[in-house]
Amino acid sequence: MKDQMSKMVSECQKNITETLQTHNKTSFKRDEWKRPGGGGGITCAFKEGALLEKGGVNVSTVYGSYSKQMQQMMPLNLDCKIKNPDFFATGISLVLHPKNPMSPTVHMNYRYFEVYQGSEVLSWWFGGGADLSPSYLFPEDVIHFHETYKECCDEVDKKIYPSQKKACDDYFYIPHRKEHRGVGGIFLFRENLYSQEAYFSWAKSCANAFLESYLPILEKRNAHSFTDQERQWQQLRRGRYVEFNLMYDKGTTFGLQSGGNIESILMSLPSCASWDYNVSPLPGSKEAEMQEVLKTPREWI
Amino acid sequence: MKDQMSKMVSECQKNITETLQTHNKTSFKRDEWKRPGGGGGITCAFKEGALLEKGGVNVSTVYGSYSKQMQQMMPLNLDCKIKNPDFFATGISLVLHPKNPMSPTVHMNYRYFEVYQGSEVLSWWFGGGADLSPSYLFPEDVIHFHETYKECCDEVDKKIYPSQKKACDDYFYIPHRKEHRGVGGIFLFRENLYSQEAYFSWAKSCANAFLESYLPILEKRNAHSFTDQERQWQQLRRGRYVEFNLMYDKGTTFGLQSGGNIESILMSLPSCASWDYNVSPLPGSKEAEMQEVLKTPREWI
Repeated sequence: MKDQMSKMVSECQKNITETLQTHNKTSFKRDEWKRPGGGGGITCAFKEGALLEKGGVNVSTVYGSYSKQMQQMMPLNLDCKIKNPDFFATGISLVLHPKNPMSPTVHMNYRYFEVYQGSEVLSWWFGGGADLSPSYLFPEDVIHFHETYKECCDEVDKKIYPSQKKACDDYFYIPHRKEHRGVGGIFLFRENLYSQEAYFSWAKSCANAFLESYLPILEKRNAHSFTDQERQWQQLRRGRYVEFNLMYDKGTTFGLQSGGNIESILMSLPSCASWDYNVSPLPGSKEAEMQEVLKTPREWI
Repeated sequence: MKDQMSKMVSECQKNITETLQTHNKTSFKRDEWKRPGGGGGITCAFKEGALLEKGGVNVSTVYGSYSKQMQQMMPLNLDCKIKNPDFFATGISLVLHPKNPMSPTVHMNYRYFEVYQGSEVLSWWFGGGADLSPSYLFPEDVIHFHETYKECCDEVDKKIYPSQKKACDDYFYIPHRKEHRGVGGIFLFRENLYSQEAYFSWAKSCANAFLESYLPILEKRNAHSFTDQERQWQQLRRGRYVEFNLMYDKGTTFGLQSGGNIESILMSLPSCASWDYNVSPLPGSKEAEMQEVLKTPREWI
């Protein structure tokens, strides 16, 4: 599974970056990095394209000693007494912030984690998902996004989409704002209820559906004209995105605390974000409509 | 002390907001709020003035039951067994983000906290300070700022400035960036080594020295011309300011977790902040000089 997943995320990164480069008319800056304890990754970042303002598509495959510090930060229920376990983690992570306020920000990541000793796998899980954060609501976009991933989930088990849809709403929540980061999608925290093969099939199918789930929305909404006021609302929404990522996102806080690659982790932050005092959209406005959905998630299918 | 400190911070807010309104040629939006459990505050926020882009000057005086939840978040060494203690907290908090990249962002706050039962004071502390976060380094500005507060501290005890200067460097530190938020100033976490009168005298003297410590710098640097590139560097530095406040500032994280007034707490965030992938200033540039000081704090006096 280590090799299968590692190969899948690398191919997925290659496919997505090549397609985005064509559509966004800009090239990615490609950085390879090594992790001192073992493994490394490839960060592909860009800014200022035809459709997108900033973003990145990162993969990493890291491994080494499953240290006491790692065990504290990511505790696992291990049945057996083990002395020197090793860990292995591989995944792809993507965030795209579009230029046009009518186009939504998107995030996706798929990860596999394993603790093992020699040839014995002691513990493993899969995690990840994909979610959409628009500044303005176009229900047909959200439905298209959710439907794409529901199809991928249904191939494995019809129970998956409803459960991951709810988990996504629950996870991407900003408690102090009492609102969600976006309009959801699918999210799997760390799970091993099904077989490894079932999760791999889910991860591969979802990862490969990314372009289909997002690119049509991005291109359609980029054609919209927008006002300075709408751009300013987008910037305020990006401020909330920053608040979630820096305060509540486990990947970000865990990554920064555990000495991960800062530039690669903070690649998720937007090019520009705004804050203003006590902003409240006018009742009945498009901004109020968006905020209403962020306060009370909908069922989209 | 409760009344003395509460009166002092209110007068200080009035004095500072009146002066800033004149110099910044813009008026504050004044919001009074009530805390359900007791007390409340006055938030004075503004945006888009002649010198300053965004900021606020807030005071609050809150009191009520010192609940189990509060005790967990802010534990105190109490000698005696107490059944229903009350708390009282009052303070002033100010953040100003200037327009011109050559002008520094400034923050100050002074606070008094007390736990009591009936007429018996069970525990108390003072806290606060003032610190400067420039985007570009003008050593004479930093020296003026530090000297102003050193004089206030020296009036109480010559040992205070060196200790608070170090505490300020230690506190305003961004571990994942391995750099400090700014060029420091003075900072007192929560202390009761001296008498209440000594701390009050320190807080009053420092709070009243704020305009003298900052206004001359703000006005002088606002006269500088600047390039788009310098403005962009300022925006990136503001990104770091946001990272510190949302991830490490105890006032912000404690305030948001304990159900404080969100708008008043997040008043500290800038109007706009930027993030870019893997930015590294050119060796020998003004940006590199600034970063060098943020990595290795200096003695300014």
